[in-house]
Amino acid sequence: MADNGITPRERDYSQWYLDVISSAELCDYSPVKGSMVLRPHGFAVWDLMKGELDQRFKDTGHVNAYFPLLIPVSFLSKEAEHVEGFAKECAVVTHHRLRAAAGGGVEPDPTARLEEPLVIRPTSETIIWHMYGKWIQSHRDLPILINQWANVVRWEMKTRPFLRTAEFLWQEGHTAHATADEAVEETKKMLGVYADFAENVMACPVIPGVKSASERFAGAVDTMCIEAMMQNGWALQAGTSHFLGQNFAKAFDVTFTGDSGVREYVWATSWGVSTRLVGAVIMTHSDDTGLVLPPMLAPVQVVITPIWKGEAEKAGVVAFADKVAKALKGLRVKVDARDQLKPGAKYFEWERKGVPLRLEIGPRDVAQNSVFAAPRTGGGKFGIPVDDNLKATVEAKLADIQGVLLQRAKERLAARTFRVDSYAEFKEKIEGGGFFLVNWCDDAANEATIKEETKATIRCYPLDGQAPTGPCFYSGRPATHVALFARAY
Amino acid sequence: MADNGITPRERDYSQWYLDVISSAELCDYSPVKGSMVLRPHGFAVWDLMKGELDQRFKDTGHVNAYFPLLIPVSFLSKEAEHVEGFAKECAVVTHHRLRAAAGGGVEPDPTARLEEPLVIRPTSETIIWHMYGKWIQSHRDLPILINQWANVVRWEMKTRPFLRTAEFLWQEGHTAHATADEAVEETKKMLGVYADFAENVMACPVIPGVKSASERFAGAVDTMCIEAMMQNGWALQAGTSHFLGQNFAKAFDVTFTGDSGVREYVWATSWGVSTRLVGAVIMTHSDDTGLVLPPMLAPVQVVITPIWKGEAEKAGVVAFADKVAKALKGLRVKVDARDQLKPGAKYFEWERKGVPLRLEIGPRDVAQNSVFAAPRTGGGKFGIPVDDNLKATVEAKLADIQGVLLQRAKERLAARTFRVDSYAEFKEKIEGGGFFLVNWCDDAANEATIKEETKATIRCYPLDGQAPTGPCFYSGRPATHVALFARAY
Repeated sequence: MADNGITPRERDYSQWYLDVISSAELCDYSPVKGSMVLRPHGFAVWDLMKGELDQRFKDTGHVNAYFPLLIPVSFLSKEAEHVEGFAKECAVVTHHRLRAAAGGGVEPDPTARLEEPLVIRPTSETIIWHMYGKWIQSHRDLPILINQWANVVRWEMKTRPFLRTAEFLWQEGHTAHATADEAVEETKKMLGVYADFAENVMACPVIPGVKSASERFAGAVDTMCIEAMMQNGWALQAGTSHFLGQNFAKAFDVTFTGDSGVREYVWATSWGVSTRLVGAVIMTHSDDTGLVLPPMLAPVQVVITPIWKGEAEKAGVVAFADKVAKALKGLRVKVDARDQLKPGAKYFEWERKGVPLRLEIGPRDVAQNSVFAAPRTGGGKFGIPVDDNLKATVEAKLADIQGVLLQRAKERLAARTFRVDSYAEFKEKIEGGGFFLVNWCDDAANEATIKEETKATIRCYPLDGQAPTGPCFYSGRPATHVALFARAY
Repeated sequence: MADNGITPRERDYSQWYLDVISSAELCDYSPVKGSMVLRPHGFAVWDLMKGELDQRFKDTGHVNAYFPLLIPVSFLSKEAEHVEGFAKECAVVTHHRLRAAAGGGVEPDPTARLEEPLVIRPTSETIIWHMYGKWIQSHRDLPILINQWANVVRWEMKTRPFLRTAEFLWQEGHTAHATADEAVEETKKMLGVYADFAENVMACPVIPGVKSASERFAGAVDTMCIEAMMQNGWALQAGTSHFLGQNFAKAFDVTFTGDSGVREYVWATSWGVSTRLVGAVIMTHSDDTGLVLPPMLAPVQVVITPIWKGEAEKAGVVAFADKVAKALKGLRVKVDARDQLKPGAKYFEWERKGVPLRLEIGPRDVAQNSVFAAPRTGGGKFGIPVDDNLKATVEAKLADIQGVLLQRAKERLAARTFRVDSYAEFKEKIEGGGFFLVNWCDDAANEATIKEETKATIRCYPLDGQAPTGPCFYSGRPATHVALFARAY
């Protein structure tokens, strides 16, 4: 660990990630293994994401609703593949009452055992399609375009803050359509919404693609995804959008009367992103000094630090700082006029918390009617006059920081994406991280072997339209796809 | 049930409430007993409440965070009174995996039994104070002013949509303070926020007060509340704010070093409102035609219904309707240009859904460059010119509707609040509903007897400063309080 409490990335990337999170007070461990407490600073990042996404969902015609947390176990086994994927590691409610225990404390009351156990939703397709069965009668009831913001629980043994936790927060869209074409279009549209959000809000460039059969969502016909690259060259799946075909409609017997008067099964999609996106933002932009946040997702975009010696100076600089804050109204601004910390300690704290822009104000700045600006992304400090253009200047600087972060991430992605033609070359290079584009002949057994031998998986078949340029890099058979392999979180 | 599918209030108030909810598509029953599905229209009302409340919480210095859903059972029994109140009817997680069952389907895997069972939070004091114990060291860490938006589960046997359900959505504020005075002030401040919200957003006048010991939150020193009156004269507790003293700090050993250098226990508050407020709004304002919503909480504030005969007329009126909608940008407006429904059917549907203002547009209105306005609160239709003042006129009308609803509710509350001096008079009048102010000598046993005999409880000791004017209406002993008795949801 370095002097600032943060292990450098080069020394231990995993520890660096944990140190950045703890020094920025983003989350904390709870007494329940794998369950995380989202502290105010971390929750605020998620809340900003939520606001941006929710607006995009509404702009594309979706409405919010809320479905129950608890699902009868029998529901999970109605869709044959879904049960394999989700009925395993989940939290099971078996009793509805506690009683005083003989040795003190409380214990489940044996007389309050549920007839049918309930699971805490790991995802809500089953309960939602049960309800859609009640709501859908005719084609006039379609499409249904519903999104839900909720918590879900998947019992994970190996957890990592934000990236993999037993309970996490997410949104899950569940739509019902009269035709396959419309559902496929919806699947693609929402993937596009995610990709746009990742790039333009999170400043994370992503590779959109389609999952191979072995990485597909349990119950989906096709899973589309966006894959982002972390600073160690590993991939992080940042969002998925599933074309579910008629699988859930058949499992829950959801039909509608089409124009022809014949009952037909309804077509479905589902799509989601979660608090793991906060982890993606941390891992993409932060440095050895601590958290770096893109301005669009920074709970505090601008911190103003008045600097003074003695009470006489204090009044003047703090008043000026408040005036500057007022001029920046509409941005997320904080004035740090705490007495007990020296300026250096304040800088250090706000840097660790990822504030994009710091404005320092000393007595000389007050005299000159200006502030001294220090961007979190570096590049040297500079003065800004406190005039009618102040807000526009600060906004432009924030936009610039947002752009710099995206540009850096794009360059990293480009520099560490490799075309490889042989498995030998792949095995050698994968140790250093990165994305690997290969000619690939779809084969689940070969995929499993490669995962076993290299810990890398097919992240997706990219949608960029590139066709294979030669035989499969692994089997030598005619290639069916260009595949993107990487190690992944 | 009447022709419109809604049982009149006079015939069956409880059934009327259910009919209003179902005809407005606010919520639906889920397959898990007591768990409710919040349908888009009902969820949107809650979401509007959430936005208004969240802003008020932030304006009073609070931040949001998120704590885990699952709580170790041992936590519940750490605070002696809390365990009595909350460790009974709750959902208990005992396993973390399912396995294939012999007869098909899935069942809890006996090899995946948790060492310590977990409960789904019925409220979060215990887990939050466990975390506060990690975060609070010195007086510099205080106050902590955190709020959480979350779902909670309390296993209820008798449920009623919105008002009492096993799972519900709510917010829970949990604050930590260095002094008792500061915590008491916070308790009162948040009760004030709730009272202001109820009156000025929900258009529900409320009686703020303090609970008697038997109605107090389990673990609180004092519980403050706001009580609203429903149209049948029953009370509905619309929000609570608790002064928790040092009870949870002691249970979880949370201390700080004060100015004196001595370790002291931290002082606490908690406060919450839930989706039952949606029920309060429904029950306060709706009528035999269906849902009535105050404009501030209406997902659709203005519905525009173009009226036409034949395709030639349609183009003109729909274009004009779109123009009007555009002029009202910023309000929540919907144009209903559906072909398959006649105007009357549309009016009927939007009335049942509680839309405050309908603007009808026929060919004659287009010719006259005006719209025909019909407020949901009645009072006759009137024309509004489509000119530069249109938006201001509509906004004023919405504010007027909001005011009318509040005024009507206030008049109902005043007309049905009675001062009674004898238990005989009370027993006679309570059958007709209403709030009853009495001189009261605090006595839990007498309170229980009255509840047994009349189904009425002390809703609160009102904060309006009225002193008892004579001996206790029940015991004849010297009165300690003025108490508000009522039957309650």
